[in-house]
Amino acid sequence: MISQARSHSVKRIADSTVRRLSAYLRFLEESAVDGVETISSDALARRGGTTSAQVRKDLSFFGSFGKRGLGYSVPELTSSLRDILGLGREWNVIIVGAGKIGMALGQYEGFEQRGFHVTAVYDTDPGKIGTQWGSILVRDMSRVEADIAEVTPDIAVLAVPVGEAQDAADRLIRAGVKAILNFAPTQLQVPGDVSVRNVNMAMELEGLSFILSNRDR
Amino acid sequence: MISQARSHSVKRIADSTVRRLSAYLRFLEESAVDGVETISSDALARRGGTTSAQVRKDLSFFGSFGKRGLGYSVPELTSSLRDILGLGREWNVIIVGAGKIGMALGQYEGFEQRGFHVTAVYDTDPGKIGTQWGSILVRDMSRVEADIAEVTPDIAVLAVPVGEAQDAADRLIRAGVKAILNFAPTQLQVPGDVSVRNVNMAMELEGLSFILSNRDR
Repeated sequence: MISQARSHSVKRIADSTVRRLSAYLRFLEESAVDGVETISSDALARRGGTTSAQVRKDLSFFGSFGKRGLGYSVPELTSSLRDILGLGREWNVIIVGAGKIGMALGQYEGFEQRGFHVTAVYDTDPGKIGTQWGSILVRDMSRVEADIAEVTPDIAVLAVPVGEAQDAADRLIRAGVKAILNFAPTQLQVPGDVSVRNVNMAMELEGLSFILSNRDR
Repeated sequence: MISQARSHSVKRIADSTVRRLSAYLRFLEESAVDGVETISSDALARRGGTTSAQVRKDLSFFGSFGKRGLGYSVPELTSSLRDILGLGREWNVIIVGAGKIGMALGQYEGFEQRGFHVTAVYDTDPGKIGTQWGSILVRDMSRVEADIAEVTPDIAVLAVPVGEAQDAADRLIRAGVKAILNFAPTQLQVPGDVSVRNVNMAMELEGLSFILSNRDR
C-alpha cells in the first residue's frame, strides 16, 4: 500500500519537500547521536524551518509515521527517510572537471558517508590526466563515453567552466547519464528524462547581497 | 517611485524569485556577449525554467521594464538586475574554515567577478595559519572578533566541520556579521536580523537519488 502510494505521488513531490526531508533526516541523525528516541513534529519543524503541519504533510506523502501525542520514533523515521531518499544503496558518481571545485568535491567525505561513491574524475588537461587524488585517478575526458558504456554512473557531477558545460552535459547524456549535479553557472538544456540539480555558489552570495542591499532602503 | 515600490515589496520577495532574477541576469550577460540587444520574456522564461507570465511578475516587483511586443533591452535590464541584486558595489567576504571547500571557494573566480571580494580566511589549525593562498592569508580564528571589530565583513562564508558550525556562527554574529553563507550540513540558529543561505552538496545529491530511486517504482 505504501509503495503504491509512493509511486502514485512521487511525480508531485516538489524539490522543496525533498530538501525538507533531507533536513529532517540530518536532525534525526544528530538526535540519535544525542540518545534521543522519539521526536515531535514541532521539533522537526523548528529544524526544517517550517511548521509542524508541514512536517506531517511532507511525511504523509510516503505513508503513515508516528503516533498522535507520542511523536516519531527516531530510529524508525530515520530508516524510512533514508529509504525514501534512496540512501539505502550505493550510487556511482563521476566528476567531470578536475579544477578546484571538482577536486574539493572528489575529496568531500560527506558524499561517501551518504553512499555516493566517486569512481572517477575526468579532465581534458594533459597536465591533470593520470594524476591521483587519494584513491581516485584523473582520467582523460576523451574516454568518458567508452567508460560510461562499460559502467554507467548513476550521477555525473559537472564542475567544468561555464562555456564547456552544455557540451559536456550533451556528451554525458548521449552516453546514458540520467542525473547531473551541475556546478557551472548556466541552465543546462536536457531531455525530459534527465534530472539536473544546480549548485551555484555565486548565486547564493547574490541572494545575500540582495537582502543586504534592500534591507537599508 | 520605483525605489518606494522596492522598499515596500522587498520583504515579500521569495528566495525562489531572487534565484530566478540571478538566472535571468546570467542569461542576459551571455546574450550581450552574443550581440543580442533585445530579449523577450519568453526567452527569459525558457532560460529560468519558468513561464513568461512569471518573468513579467518577477520583474514587476521592481518597476516597469520592457515594452509590450518589443521585449526587454538587454543592456538596460542587465543594469537594473545588477542593481536589484546589489551587484553594483563590492562586498567584503571572509571565509571561516581553510579546508578543501574553503580553499576552493577562496580561489573561485566567480566570486570576484561579481564583486564578492574575499579579504581573509580563518582557521584554528596551526599548520594552516600563516599560509598564503594567492593573495589571501590564512589567519588565526582566535583573531576573528578583533579583525571584525576593525572591518566588519558584509558576508561570512562558513566552511567548517558540522560540529563547529553553530559555535563559529555565534562568534561571527556576536562580532557583528549579518549575513552567512553556510556550507556545513546543519541548520544554524540565528537571530532574526541575520540572513543565512545554505549550500549543502550532499543534500543536492540526495535530491537526485530521491528522483532516481522513485523513478523506477
